[in-house]
Amino acid sequence: MRFITIFLTSALVLILSTLTYAENETPEINANEIKQYFEPLPESIIDDEKNAALIKLGKKLYMDPRLSVNDKIACNSCHALDNYGVDGEPTSPGHDKRRGDRNSPTTMNAALHITQFWDGRASDVEEQALGPILNPIEMGMPDKGSVVAKLKAIDEYQQLFAEAFPDQKYPFNYNNIGVAIGAFERTLLTPSRFDDFLRGDEDALTQEELAGLRKFIDAGCVTCHNGVVIGGNSYKKIGLVEPYETDDMGRYEVTELKNDQKVFKVPSLRNITHTAPYFHDGSVETLDEAIRLMAKYQLGKDADDDFVDDVKAFLGTLTGKE
Amino acid sequence: MRFITIFLTSALVLILSTLTYAENETPEINANEIKQYFEPLPESIIDDEKNAALIKLGKKLYMDPRLSVNDKIACNSCHALDNYGVDGEPTSPGHDKRRGDRNSPTTMNAALHITQFWDGRASDVEEQALGPILNPIEMGMPDKGSVVAKLKAIDEYQQLFAEAFPDQKYPFNYNNIGVAIGAFERTLLTPSRFDDFLRGDEDALTQEELAGLRKFIDAGCVTCHNGVVIGGNSYKKIGLVEPYETDDMGRYEVTELKNDQKVFKVPSLRNITHTAPYFHDGSVETLDEAIRLMAKYQLGKDADDDFVDDVKAFLGTLTGKE
Repeated sequence: MRFITIFLTSALVLILSTLTYAENETPEINANEIKQYFEPLPESIIDDEKNAALIKLGKKLYMDPRLSVNDKIACNSCHALDNYGVDGEPTSPGHDKRRGDRNSPTTMNAALHITQFWDGRASDVEEQALGPILNPIEMGMPDKGSVVAKLKAIDEYQQLFAEAFPDQKYPFNYNNIGVAIGAFERTLLTPSRFDDFLRGDEDALTQEELAGLRKFIDAGCVTCHNGVVIGGNSYKKIGLVEPYETDDMGRYEVTELKNDQKVFKVPSLRNITHTAPYFHDGSVETLDEAIRLMAKYQLGKDADDDFVDDVKAFLGTLTGKE
Repeated sequence: MRFITIFLTSALVLILSTLTYAENETPEINANEIKQYFEPLPESIIDDEKNAALIKLGKKLYMDPRLSVNDKIACNSCHALDNYGVDGEPTSPGHDKRRGDRNSPTTMNAALHITQFWDGRASDVEEQALGPILNPIEMGMPDKGSVVAKLKAIDEYQQLFAEAFPDQKYPFNYNNIGVAIGAFERTLLTPSRFDDFLRGDEDALTQEELAGLRKFIDAGCVTCHNGVVIGGNSYKKIGLVEPYETDDMGRYEVTELKNDQKVFKVPSLRNITHTAPYFHDGSVETLDEAIRLMAKYQLGKDADDDFVDDVKAFLGTLTGKE
């Protein structure tokens, strides 16, 4: 009798294990659950036709190194359009090769973040764009007036500003530079296979990618990385579960709330496969390592190889299609 | 043999069911999981001693109906300090009894939200406090100058402003009214039994409250309601899973991004048991109903009575202690 019990119990355990395995092979993803967490990228967030002249000026400015004191650094230097909006550096060299403390975040889909910069100190891309131009270790222009004067002396900009701001008598001002660059940045959306999936194409993701998505949700990654850009919509402390070593006080520098120490805007995971290195200081070289560290410090979990591989496969579905 | 198989299988199923039941009775809450989602309220977010004069002025202003055009509406009218920072109205009557479209949110712990108002249009409590004074259907003062002139004519304020801003030659200005009220609001923190629990007191919550917490996490409520004020740290669309009927376009009015239509700042759940009615328009009278509607529209789930009771029990632990 005891033998039979053990045998049957073992058999049942075997059946249950097989079921679990089968579930891993075809992970169940409920449509409501997905809606609860994610939203597809909108097709556009700016009227391209109506704002054509403004966007044209914005792109010109974005690519123009003359916005820097030595004519060498453009927005595009650190946020390269042909490289998913980043430069691949831990922190970016400025006009005199010095580097700041924080990783240059991608400009792709940035307009859909709640705020800009790692600490959220600018409320939108229009405001953000004006920061680095005057930052002494970034583009290093001495003051707003110098920037405006420099651009004003370039014939091409005379026409571009006039066309971009047809209702303004004096369109040459510092603020308008941000308005134009911001308008251009609003066009930088990168729809991916995951958006196809979110819009109902059940075959858009492979089994492994679906398994990764299941694990991404179940492990708790989705608590912070959710919404339309899978992140970018809240602030969280780095080291929620295990204290994380960093001198960067993050959002505390903006709010001066003790509570905001080591708090950063949650980065978007769109195109994350292509935007190494990672974290606010660019200190993490590989996505594998980033996944392991996030699991450990934010979730208190040891990520095994399967977890890392599957989640990485899922994250690959967030890469923009050509 | 077949009989024995069935018998043993049933026995095993019975044991498993009992285990599940037992788990419901003593829900497992893992400390890391908790840290991943929640953070206890800080003891304070402003230096009370150093800012004593500023806070004193702020409280005086907060309670003073003379900030309104007919001397009848104070901040405290809609955000009553003796009523968890709310007035219990769906929307609040202003100086001439007209009402706005949105429910007055509580001022308790408001300083810890990412932004202020349901749509996040003010960046902090200092900025928020200045809005209603000039709003024509709230306190209805015609302009900033009138507010300053009115206060300046009150002897008591001469002294209070001078003491609150000792380094300023001309402390009477509109902005300083916000600075003072904001400083006072930073003192409005309401630590609760849940904070005791988060700080390690395992006996702070009853079995039912723990069961509610377990369900709150597992159902997905925690996706939006997390962090130090259990909400207040992100924006979310109302009707994530099922479309929700409302004319209020929410954060869209601030950002003009289509994506932000019907998007609101996630409200804090601290003191939620005492801040009925609910939702951005105050249209939901009871917490039971609010829980059911949130489950349905945000999570695509039918909340049964047990779920509602348990989650409500958990939410009760978020009430500030005297």
